[in-house]
Amino acid sequence: MSDKSDSSASFENYLAECADKITVVIDQLIAPAVGPEAQLMRAMRHGALAGGKRLRPFITIEVGRMFDAPEKSLLRAASALECVHAYSLIHDDLPCMDDDDLRRGQPTVHIAFDEATAVLAGDALQTLAFEILANPETHGDATVRCKLIEVLASSSGSRGMVGGQMIDMAPSFDDENALSILTRMQRMKTGALFACAAEFGAIIGGANEQEHHALAGFTHDLGLAFQIKDDLLDVQGDESVVGKAVSKDKDAGKQNFVSLLGEEGAVSRVNMLADQAKQHLSVFGGRASTLLNTVNFVLDRHH
Amino acid sequence: MSDKSDSSASFENYLAECADKITVVIDQLIAPAVGPEAQLMRAMRHGALAGGKRLRPFITIEVGRMFDAPEKSLLRAASALECVHAYSLIHDDLPCMDDDDLRRGQPTVHIAFDEATAVLAGDALQTLAFEILANPETHGDATVRCKLIEVLASSSGSRGMVGGQMIDMAPSFDDENALSILTRMQRMKTGALFACAAEFGAIIGGANEQEHHALAGFTHDLGLAFQIKDDLLDVQGDESVVGKAVSKDKDAGKQNFVSLLGEEGAVSRVNMLADQAKQHLSVFGGRASTLLNTVNFVLDRHH
Repeated sequence: MSDKSDSSASFENYLAECADKITVVIDQLIAPAVGPEAQLMRAMRHGALAGGKRLRPFITIEVGRMFDAPEKSLLRAASALECVHAYSLIHDDLPCMDDDDLRRGQPTVHIAFDEATAVLAGDALQTLAFEILANPETHGDATVRCKLIEVLASSSGSRGMVGGQMIDMAPSFDDENALSILTRMQRMKTGALFACAAEFGAIIGGANEQEHHALAGFTHDLGLAFQIKDDLLDVQGDESVVGKAVSKDKDAGKQNFVSLLGEEGAVSRVNMLADQAKQHLSVFGGRASTLLNTVNFVLDRHH
Repeated sequence: MSDKSDSSASFENYLAECADKITVVIDQLIAPAVGPEAQLMRAMRHGALAGGKRLRPFITIEVGRMFDAPEKSLLRAASALECVHAYSLIHDDLPCMDDDDLRRGQPTVHIAFDEATAVLAGDALQTLAFEILANPETHGDATVRCKLIEVLASSSGSRGMVGGQMIDMAPSFDDENALSILTRMQRMKTGALFACAAEFGAIIGGANEQEHHALAGFTHDLGLAFQIKDDLLDVQGDESVVGKAVSKDKDAGKQNFVSLLGEEGAVSRVNMLADQAKQHLSVFGGRASTLLNTVNFVLDRHH
């Protein structure tokens, strides 16, 4: 790992501050762990509060800031989005899915508790996400709240994240179409929530159509770059740094962008997507400087 | 089984007609089964469309009719509620939960497909429920849509249905408090969605505070009566009629209302709750006749 430049170190500090704010908000929004059902709330906290870069909430907040959107609305919407991300990780880690024992260097929810609790904690975190968004504290205008709910639901449901996970569960892809199916899968599984993150900031900030369009292009390329980088870390990474098992795809005989494009091809694809992502932001001029740094962060990350 | 009176037979026909309408609406709202993720949509349909009395949607529709609420709004809200009920059944049937192979006389989703697909189909049905409610087609007023979403989320999340399921997963209750914990568990696990069903009709219909209050009392008593009757069917029922495994609680060494109250005590509790439920409806006069028949149906059902 090379020395960090001052600017990347200060970006990472800024990202960490934002992550802490989100952690505080989610902690407040999960019900207290009391009564005979207390284990459920403990498991929800374990899954939603234990680490994570909070990249999706960060995008919501930074996009919203470009439009001077109210911080409380951004924090609540971003927290709802992160609850959906957290629920998907809890369910993805289950034995019947990816069967992972370790996540962000911690035992996964079904290891720390049990499988039934993990299923229920994921279910309740999804519910909480929609409950947060529907609450008038998130935004004074119910039409805006409904719009946020519609975007989150379409990004995370059968035509978004969960649909992508379904494709990922298929035993293997037909070789001829492998790259196109893999790209569709990742666009749904990972890309849709990135798109939702920016869309949240744009909706709360009252973006115009051109701005919505530019942000959609930005997150499309950033999300795919993020996923290919993930596949590279799976090949190149050190488990103690990555914080979860590595070489998983290879061990499982699964195709990913590195197996299909080669390591060099994957690196050049990431760089190309990063350049494209940045170009989409040009419409925002200097206001987008933090989002530009986000692209660099995704490229250079080691976990 | 004694001969059915004409009125109970005509009630059951009416209930079945309503169930068919809900089935048609849900079928239209689940995305078409196309693309490499098609299995997900097939599993969602299997879980949400295969039979069921649709008692919760029926309550929404009948409460709404007392207020002359628009049928389209009622059908969409009732379908969203039924998607949440269906998702909870799919997840409850999983091997790590109740481990049931049979539901409504059909193989459960993880038997017909596999466990991963069942987890994802449940997840996506929950998402779909909120997507339906947030959509302007459900109601022209976004404030009403947000209210429906808040009620569904609080009824089904960690302080409602899922919290109740968490209590149900506990190995066994402390004997001294068994009846009070069991009652709390059932109020959350079953009662909350019954309350939500009536509340949906009342919100769309623009009920006043007294009417909301009367309906809350009605569903509180009806939900508990429904559950105790379920426990009685578990003891008395025939698997081929009930459509799922019977004697489950006894075989699993779990307490239920029959083990705690005795069979006679449970029967008399059901009758008392049914009388109370009907009394709550007196404020609506003759408009509540169908809801009164619903109470009789819950009492007399054999599955």
